[in-house]
This record gives sequence, structure tokens and C-alpha cells, in this order.
Amino acid sequence: MSGLIGKTGIVVRNIERADSGVIDELGRYGVATVHEAQGRKSLLDSALRPIQQGVSVCGSAVTVLVAPGDNWMFHVAVEQCRPGDILVVAPSSPCSDGFFGDLLATSLQARGVRALVIDAGVRDSQTLREMGFAVWSRHINAQGTIKETLGSVNLPLVCAGQLVNPGDVVLADDDGAVIVRRDELPAVLEATRKRADLEEHKRLRLASGELGLDLYAMRPRLAEKGLRYVDSLEELEG
Amino acid sequence: MSGLIGKTGIVVRNIERADSGVIDELGRYGVATVHEAQGRKSLLDSALRPIQQGVSVCGSAVTVLVAPGDNWMFHVAVEQCRPGDILVVAPSSPCSDGFFGDLLATSLQARGVRALVIDAGVRDSQTLREMGFAVWSRHINAQGTIKETLGSVNLPLVCAGQLVNPGDVVLADDDGAVIVRRDELPAVLEATRKRADLEEHKRLRLASGELGLDLYAMRPRLAEKGLRYVDSLEELEG
Amino acid sequence: MSGLIGKTGIVVRNIERADSGVIDELGRYGVATVHEAQGRKSLLDSALRPIQQGVSVCGSAVTVLVAPGDNWMFHVAVEQCRPGDILVVAPSSPCSDGFFGDLLATSLQARGVRALVIDAGVRDSQTLREMGFAVWSRHINAQGTIKETLGSVNLPLVCAGQLVNPGDVVLADDDGAVIVRRDELPAVLEATRKRADLEEHKRLRLASGELGLDLYAMRPRLAEKGLRYVDSLEELEG
Amino acid sequence: MSGLIGKTGIVVRNIERADSGVIDELGRYGVATVHEAQGRKSLLDSALRPIQQGVSVCGSAVTVLVAPGDNWMFHVAVEQCRPGDILVVAPSSPCSDGFFGDLLATSLQARGVRALVIDAGVRDSQTLREMGFAVWSRHINAQGTIKETLGSVNLPLVCAGQLVNPGDVVLADDDGAVIVRRDELPAVLEATRKRADLEEHKRLRLASGELGLDLYAMRPRLAEKGLRYVDSLEELEG
Amino acid sequence: MSGLIGKTGIVVRNIERADSGVIDELGRYGVATVHEAQGRKSLLDSALRPIQQGVSVCGSAVTVLVAPGDNWMFHVAVEQCRPGDILVVAPSSPCSDGFFGDLLATSLQARGVRALVIDAGVRDSQTLREMGFAVWSRHINAQGTIKETLGSVNLPLVCAGQLVNPGDVVLADDDGAVIVRRDELPAVLEATRKRADLEEHKRLRLASGELGLDLYAMRPRLAEKGLRYVDSLEELEG
Amino acid sequence: MSGLIGKTGIVVRNIERADSGVIDELGRYGVATVHEAQGRKSLLDSALRPIQQGVSVCGSAVTVLVAPGDNWMFHVAVEQCRPGDILVVAPSSPCSDGFFGDLLATSLQARGVRALVIDAGVRDSQTLREMGFAVWSRHINAQGTIKETLGSVNLPLVCAGQLVNPGDVVLADDDGAVIVRRDELPAVLEATRKRADLEEHKRLRLASGELGLDLYAMRPRLAEKGLRYVDSLEELEG
Repeated sequence: MSGLIGKTGIVVRNIERADSGVIDELGRYGVATVHEAQGRKSLLDSALRPIQQGVSVCGSAVTVLVAPGDNWMFHVAVEQCRPGDILVVAPSSPCSDGFFGDLLATSLQARGVRALVIDAGVRDSQTLREMGFAVWSRHINAQGTIKETLGSVNLPLVCAGQLVNPGDVVLADDDGAVIVRRDELPAVLEATRKRADLEEHKRLRLASGELGLDLYAMRPRLAEKGLRYVDSLEELEG
Repeated sequence: MSGLIGKTGIVVRNIERADSGVIDELGRYGVATVHEAQGRKSLLDSALRPIQQGVSVCGSAVTVLVAPGDNWMFHVAVEQCRPGDILVVAPSSPCSDGFFGDLLATSLQARGVRALVIDAGVRDSQTLREMGFAVWSRHINAQGTIKETLGSVNLPLVCAGQLVNPGDVVLADDDGAVIVRRDELPAVLEATRKRADLEEHKRLRLASGELGLDLYAMRPRLAEKGLRYVDSLEELEG
Repeated sequence: MSGLIGKTGIVVRNIERADSGVIDELGRYGVATVHEAQGRKSLLDSALRPIQQGVSVCGSAVTVLVAPGDNWMFHVAVEQCRPGDILVVAPSSPCSDGFFGDLLATSLQARGVRALVIDAGVRDSQTLREMGFAVWSRHINAQGTIKETLGSVNLPLVCAGQLVNPGDVVLADDDGAVIVRRDELPAVLEATRKRADLEEHKRLRLASGELGLDLYAMRPRLAEKGLRYVDSLEELEG
Repeated sequence: MSGLIGKTGIVVRNIERADSGVIDELGRYGVATVHEAQGRKSLLDSALRPIQQGVSVCGSAVTVLVAPGDNWMFHVAVEQCRPGDILVVAPSSPCSDGFFGDLLATSLQARGVRALVIDAGVRDSQTLREMGFAVWSRHINAQGTIKETLGSVNLPLVCAGQLVNPGDVVLADDDGAVIVRRDELPAVLEATRKRADLEEHKRLRLASGELGLDLYAMRPRLAEKGLRYVDSLEELEG
Repeated sequence: MSGLIGKTGIVVRNIERADSGVIDELGRYGVATVHEAQGRKSLLDSALRPIQQGVSVCGSAVTVLVAPGDNWMFHVAVEQCRPGDILVVAPSSPCSDGFFGDLLATSLQARGVRALVIDAGVRDSQTLREMGFAVWSRHINAQGTIKETLGSVNLPLVCAGQLVNPGDVVLADDDGAVIVRRDELPAVLEATRKRADLEEHKRLRLASGELGLDLYAMRPRLAEKGLRYVDSLEELEG
Repeated sequence: MSGLIGKTGIVVRNIERADSGVIDELGRYGVATVHEAQGRKSLLDSALRPIQQGVSVCGSAVTVLVAPGDNWMFHVAVEQCRPGDILVVAPSSPCSDGFFGDLLATSLQARGVRALVIDAGVRDSQTLREMGFAVWSRHINAQGTIKETLGSVNLPLVCAGQLVNPGDVVLADDDGAVIVRRDELPAVLEATRKRADLEEHKRLRLASGELGLDLYAMRPRLAEKGLRYVDSLEELEG
């Protein structure tokens, strides 16, 4: 499949998507928790930041490869989107232009698309916030793009340092965005649930004042590594 | 005029400003729209970001060249400002210091100045937001400046990668800031109006579910460039 | 004392803290004002940004040196914290990982810790905001850390370009964070009060329209440096 | 295969490598030429720079995923290397530490490894140059690493923004590094040869003073796009 | 003239160039010296770095505005070049692609062009060095460009933060590049000569061990500013 | 002592320096080796890079705090320098200006100073290389500085993220620069010698083809952590 990465001139019409109920349940958890639960894989570069605050989304990736400074493929991609999808866009070389604005957001919203994750720039940022269309991007930039060069839709691509396949599940919140492979989704959800339960339990104990040192039984291992407690700085210098 | 760029020790008292009614009308449109309407010229580097959210301003540029780490010229500039002006400031070499804080903002507000656009840093950011004084800057930084070296006021300068003449019109919103030449303002406003009307029309059609592919009649040109639709990834790999 | 910087494997149990009343009074002033009042020393690198807006904190530094990608020492540090403390954390080499999330914040809140200042990344950022736990960090990143390597607690360290001793006072607001030496605190508070009073006085005069040029009597010195006023750009070019 | 990306704790012993004769022939061409010849795919982020000048290498990728600040897997990887290989290393989160120095280079040289391509830092840079061991890295940094955490060897990984499979061909020169899929190598070599021949032909004509405008017959298309020649700037302003 | 900045679709055939003898004489001095001599104006952003070492060039600017990722205008520009020219290129939005390689360099060399100064990327860097074609660029990157969009040739433009007019004089060495306005060239050369003579005189005295404190008579002013000499650190702490 | 960091207006005349024989011996080792030998402390930020290649220096730090864009204190510092010293310079806020050029280098060379380490910019870089005056800097920039504001000489300061005391030993090579506390020098030299001997021994064994896995007896611990060897990728996917 790796030979397809970077190919242009192709649109794949039918991609397999994960079960929407499972996707929605995963969307209740945070990116950090899910990233841990799946073994710390597939976290997008933290330079991708939400343009809004306090919004969390989860959906199926429709992948779009674009030429730098060229947003033609967005229009091609819209037709391939279904309700619950998230557009995942990467340029074939780094570009900070504003590839995406309120008109494209209107079009995607009309098809039920939940968000855009783009390793490049967007514009009309205030309107996008007012529309409630969620975006994670590397840049905010009014500089527009042209429509001259083909890219691809629904091929695997590398976005913000991670491989994304069409139909992979994307989860994004204020911390950033993480990818979950479609075929690993059930296992990841199960691991996430367990982790979240465990964290809730720990939270209660920590909130009550119990120390992590005791809760996680860290003291013996710290001692073994040689951690030394002294009463004061003066003791060290004397 | 280009020989004046970078000159120091000069203050120009009288600059020509555009008609305030026209400026105010331009201020109703977004930076991305106006930037398009004037042929994608004169957009300031997107590294300049608003310190507030959801605020849009439009006004006449009073230009200020400052020495790095030296904000003396701000005080000289205040005297040259009129209601509706926007201070556009560039350091003669890159500097992240906080050149501007709440006292200078108070002074500018007292003269009716609408905003500051600065290719450097500001401080007292929370107070500036509370005062409702709008700022676009490259940095937020408590590090102050000195008052030792002359710069200039109301000479042309390069700010964030763009030439700005005194009296040019500055439009800034959450996407960034764009410059409109004073003598091009009527034509740019006219083009902006047309573009905005056109966009509104498109927005309605896109919101109703019509595809950009059809609205913009892109399909023939995409086909001509060789875009190929396949049913599935398997079809490509088989 | 400088030989202790960078040492690992040590926890200092007792540190001297400044008087809490004095700390609280200093907390009423802004970072920019206090930084000026103490002679422009000890401002942390402006790349450290608050993850929330409009929050100001002041407290005693509990210093934590961590290995890159390793947050083990946070748990050790929690036990050394008292109400009113601020955790000041630096990695021994640059790292953008998310060292800190909602569980550790819960634990610190349970001990009355007021904030975290970290020259690295944090995660669970939305939850941290909802909890009201204030954070200044260089990065936001869901990428977690391990617990394998010792660092130190309550040794002097360099954080974001500044030396911080345990027990030093940390003041942070939307502009960034500044350190005040414990033994300089009374003098700095006094200087801050005077400066703030002076600024308030100036603010009133500037708000009334008086020019800084006159208020600060700058005109003679500007003239002496050779500042020249001209009536128009044409005058210069002619 | 994408589910394997980011997995840790695994070493793949046998990987398929391309024919060494073909690899050596590809190594006679430049990265820019090969990148063009394969349709502008799989170029590593240009932030990866050679530590030496004027050296070009081509070989089979042995892929190594490492934990940030941890170079344990290098030692595991050495055993899997054969003459003609190139080590391709990526950290699981960004890290600027010096993962690699002269001892590891000695070990790799003893096995006939041609170069290191690493999306992180190296050290002992002068010794590496003196040894003639070629390196492309994102950083040069004396900061060392630990050996605590497992990564993987010879799984597919994302390095500097591109997917690399074990056994893929790596070509690197002063411009950077590009990956060629093993199964696409013959076709890419053929396309490279043709492109290089064509370029040689063009070079001769351009060197003789023929213009690209004529050689590439660009004038009609430029005219069609509306390119306008004027005699002087004054003509435009008049 | 500022209305022409950013205009596309125009080529100006005839530009005025400075006297080649004067240009050649200026080329004997360093960028830092000339920059000082002309009052510290018009220094290009120091992020533009030479791809070679120890080479200094001086020539007349032929300005080229290109679209991001599009090098079509280079071919148009070649025809406008004369012996002794230097191509000064800026993209209309930031772009790190490799716009320029050995074929274009061959073509420019055939016309006697001395160098390229580009606020973007170049490729074939080793070949360019071997050809002896000097380049100052922001990036080195094998990623190529397309030929779809018009820019302009010989209009004024902003390159790396400075206004450059066609026919302005460009001086570049290992420190970077500076622009000298054509009509200011004689005065700048005269000021440069004087400064260089003065520096040579100072160099001899400094080399003989005389202190700058005495040579520049700094001691009284330092004392007046309050500089205080103490015998030891202990004296300060005691 | 920490209260002295950032103080201005003070010059300390007499500082204690380490034994020159010991310094010279340390200078035979690499930065990476010494950094390891002293427990990975006090490495300057790797953004400081040598402007020359293949040069290594070791000497006593004369520390200089400068105002941003102001190099006045260099002249004050020269008088305090002795043969074998290295100037260590930090600006009180980040600045990329060229603080230092060939005249100051001439003056320092006349006093036997070995190098400059500066967390800011230098200029006349080619002349500095020709003179054989070694420099490690964050920037190369022709932009000059003024002489208006006092800093300090021979107070402790933070340079590139590390505390440096006057008289501390500075070692710099192609990897960067590291600080050794004066009172720790004998122990660090001894540890360095041992480490270098050990490395030499290892180098011979690795060069002969012995694996690090065996030389360092890593196999059992890798197995214990769960490292799993598989024969092929197919085995994982099957």
C-alpha cells in the first residue's frame, strides 16, 4: 500500500468506515487517553492546533493530498464525504497558505462533515468559529490558493508526521489529534474504557490527598535508583 | 520614495488619509475577502496574530520605524495620530521585546486610534484586552524597551514583509492584516463588494448541498488533467 | 550553589518560602510592572505561554528537574509542596512531550498548589482549564512520558533561560512569568507599589489627552538627538 | 501494514533488499533528479541536513524506531545490518538529543553500513566527518541518550514526514534524502536515466546561450496567460 | 511606485543599472561595512544564507516575483539579464520549495549573471557550488516546482523584509546580503571607503594592544552612566 | 550569588581562573565526552553553532551581559581578558544582531583570547575565519549594534540555557559548547580521561566487528523488557 502514498490524479470512491456507534463512543474520551490506550501510536504533530477551544470531534478520515498552494482537491473530496466524516488534508510539500475558508466549510457542513484536520493553513477563522465548524490546522493565513494541479482523494497519506489511511478514525480535541486504525478500533475503545475507569479511580484518590508515590508504590523503585532526600540545600553545600 | 525606507530622525506631520466613510465600509469585510479582491497583494506575514478574538478593525496607517528594543518613537507618533488611525510599527531589526503596553494604549485611545499592528512584541496583554484596544503582534512579552535611539514617523516602511506607506489603509481581523493602497481603495472596495456578493450567492447554493464541482463546473477540466476515479483501494493494488 | 544545577537524584525537603502575605500582595500586580520594578531581571522566555486567559498567580517555587520524556519527578515533587506553591519544571534537555495532565493537577490541587510553570509540554489542556488549574507551558501535546530516570526536586535550576532557586517567588499572568528572589521580595514589592502608583497617575493624564512627549518632557532630548519634523513626504523628496 | 507503524518491541531479521548493482547505479544521480523521476514522492523533510559536504550515498534502509532520548535500539539494529545498508532512524516523539556518535559509527562501518539518516540529533560530528561516515540529521547536539526503552527494528516507520519500509532504497546528497520503494526501483532508475539524459541535452543548449523560453517553447503559453512586456517602469506609472 | 509591488503578469524590459565600475569597487568591501556606511538600511533578513563559503558578489538586481511553488518566471527573467546582474527572487507567499537548480544556473551563467538571492529554496546545491554559481537562499530543498502561474520581472518587490527595485545594487557575502539604492550608490561607496579606511586604522591600533576603551575614549561616558568596577565577586556579596 | 544574575553596571576585575595546564589537557577531549564525564550537566543550547569547522577550544570564561542590540560591554570586557580566556556573552533579551566583528576580534586576539561564545549574532564571519578567531554563535548577521546601555562583566549569567560563572571552564568544538565549574575541573578531567580510555578500548573492539549487544551484554536485559525477534514482516501480518 505504501506505493500509493504521494500518488496524484486518483480518487477512491468507496472506503470502509468504522461503525458510527463505536466512533461516537470513542469521541467521549480525550486524545491523550486514547493515545495512551493504543500504545502511544499515531499522534499528529503537536504543531497542529485547534482554531477553537473546548471542542472535541471523532469521525472517519477522508484523506486529501493537495499540491502546495492549491486547494482544487477539496472540491473533489467534498463529493466523497458522508455524515460523520473528518477531512484529513496534507500538502505534498510544506505550505502555510490558507487552503480552506467559510465556503468550503459550508459545503462540508451541508454533507454532515464534522471537522477539518489540515497540515497547512486555513482562513476565515472567525467565521468558521461562528459556524461551529471545527478545525485543527498548522497555520491561520488569509493567503489563498489556486486550482491548477491534481492531488488525490482517499489514498493513504502522511499528515503531520503520521500515516493516515482513508477510513481510519480521527479523534481531535484541545490537545491535538490522534489516528486510530479502523481494524484496531474495537480493541482501542476497550483499552480506552479501561484506562479511563482506572484514571477516574485514581483521580478520586489523588483528589482526597493520597500521594502518587503511594498510590503507584513508587518509593521502593526510587530508592533503588538512588534517590536521596536531604533536609536542606545547606546540607548539600556544607 | 524607496530611498526613504529605513531613514531615521524624521517625522512627517501631514499625511493624506482615505475617506473615512470608505474605510468604514471596507471594514465590514474580512481580510481574506479583501486580499482576494485586490489581487492577493500586501498581506502581512501570518506570524502577526491578534491578541484578542473576534475583533475586526480598519483605519489609516500611521507608520513608525523603531530601533530594536527602543519604543521612543511611539510617543512621537501619538501626536501625529487622528481618530480612525491605526499605528503600524516595524523594528529596524527583528526584536521580540514588549514595545507597547497599557499606558501607550491609553494615550492612543485618547486620540481615537483604533488599533496597533506591530512586527514585534507587546505587553500588558490582558489589560489591553480589557481596555478594548485591539492589537496584532508577532510576540507577547513583558520585556520592556528603552528610549535612546531615533526612528521615524510617517515614512514608508516594510512591516511583516510588506511595504506600508503612511495613509495606506489597514484592515485586520482574526486571519491577520492586509494593506490597501490609498489610491487603490475605491477600486478595491468595489471589487470587494462584488466578490462578497458572489460569495454570498455561492454560500447559499453550497449550503443547500450543491457541489462546488458543479457550481464551478470543474468536472471537465479535472477530467482533462487526467483525474481518475476508482471504486476502491483494492482496485489500485490488484 | 551553581555546582548543584543539573544534579540529579536529590530531593531537598525543607526550603525557605517568602511571607505569604507579601506574596499575595505582589500577585495583585502585573508581570510587566514587577519585571520593571526589579530592574528587568529574571523574566522567563516569552515562548512559555498560559494555556488559559485572564488568570494571574503568585507563589513560591518548588523546582523540579526532569529527564526529557520522563515525568517521574513530578510525583516526588508533589509530596514537597505546600499551599501557595507553584511548581517550576525544566527538562535537562529540550522536550515537547506532555509531561503533565489532569491526574497530576488533581494531586497538586489537593495540596493547594496554585499553578505549574514548565519549559516543556502539558496535556489534558481543556480539563486543566475546566479544573481551574493554571499552567504556563512551552507546548501542548498529548504525547505522554515514562518513569525511568531520576531528576531532582528543590535544587536551583535554569528554566526558560532564567535561574530559579527553590523558594523564589514566581509571578505569572497573560504576559508570561517572572522570578523574584526571595531575599529581594520586600524591596521589589516596594518598588512595584511605587511604579504602579506612578503608572496610575500617568494613565489618568494620558487618558485625558496629555501627550507622553510633554508628560515625560521628551521634546528637548529628541531635538538634541536631531529629530526633524517635515510637513509632508513631498518635502523630503523634492 | 500500517498497523505496524509505531509498534515497539519487535525486530525483523530478514528484509528484502534491492539489487546492489541497481542501487549503485541510482547512486550516481542526484536526489533532485531522482525525486522528479519518481513523480515527486517520498522526499524527506528538508530540515534533515548533511553534516558533511559533497558526499552522496545510496543504500537499503534498515529502519529503527527509537524512544525520545533513548538510543538502545541502535545496538540492536547494528546486528541486522549488511554491507550497503543505510540506517534510517526516527524517534517516536520529536527529540533533538545526540543519539549517535563515533562509537556507533565505528560499529556500523565495521559492518559496511554506508550512512545514517536520522530525524533527530547526532554528536561527535567532527570525528564522524574524519571517519568518512556520512550522516543526514535534524540536529547536531552533544547531549547523550539513555538505554531504557524498547523501540523496533525493520518495521515500517514515518521518518521526517515520509513512510519508509525496511528495504526501501535511500538516496542522499547535499540537497537532502529521498526514498524509493523497492518494487519501484527499476522503473525509477529507468525514468531517472531518461531525465538525466534529457537534462544533459538541455544543459548544453542552455550553456550555449539558448533561452529556456525557446527551448521549452514557453512564449505562446505565457502570452495566453496574459504576460505583458513593457519597456520601462515609467510606462506603467505614467 | 508602491502600487506596483505584488503586481503580476508584467515584465519590464529596460531597467537602469548603476555604473559597473562603481559596482565592482563596492564589491571589494564587506556587507557589514557597506550596511554601516549607508546608515544601516536595507539589510536582507539574516535567514538568507550563502550555500557556499568565502564568496562575495556585487551586481545589479533583476527582480523576480514568483508564485509559491512555481518557477516559471525564472525563464522569463533570464532573457532580461545582462552580464553583472544578480537575480533577486521573492515568492508571493512563503515557500521552501527548491525553485532553482543547475539548469537555470547554466542558463544564467551563459548570460553573465553573477548570483542568485532568493527568499525561498534551491536544489542541486553541490552542482551549483561546483559550477561556481553563487547563491544566497532561505532553504536547500530537492522539492521541485511547477510552471502554471504568472509572476513579474523587474517590478519593485519585497525580498526577505526589504524593498528591492530593479537596478538596485546587491552586495552579498558570508554575512548575508544588502541592497544599495542605485541613486545612492556613489555616496554609499564614498562613505564605505572612508569607513573602511578608518577601520583599517583602528585595526592596526587594536592589533597592537591598544584598548577600544581608550581608542574610542569611552571611559568618561561609561563612568557617567554609572559603571562601577569592583575587585571581586566577594566584594559584591559581602 | 543568584541575586547578581541580570545585574548591570558592574565590572568585576579579578576572577579566579583554573590552572592553564589542566584547561589545556581538557581541551584535547571532545565536548560530548566531557559532557558525559561530568554527568551531563551544563551543555549550552545546541542552537549555538561554530562559524568554522574542525576547531576545538578550551579556556576560562569572562562573562559579559549585554543589552539587546548594544555591544558596548565588549569593549569593557576586553580590558579584563587574559591569554587563554574565552568570552561568554548573553543578551538580556533575545537578539539576533551582529554584536561582534573583526575589529573586536583583533582586539581580543591581541590579548590572547581564544574564542567567543555568544547567544546572539556575529558579523564579518569570513574575516573571522581567515583570522583564525573561533566563534560559536546563534546567528550570523551583518546588522550592527549601538553603544548606549550598560551591561556587566564577570558576573554570573545564563547563556544559552546554562548558568556560567566567571572563571568557569568553557570547552567548545563542532558539537557545541559545555561549561565545567572551576572547582569541579580536576574531577571532571579525571572522569573524562577514564571515559576516553574506555571509549578507545570499545572503539577497537567495535571496529573489529564485535557487536555492542555483546560488548555491553545487552541481550538479557532486552529479552527481559520483552524484545521479540521475528523472521519477516509477513510473520507479523499473517
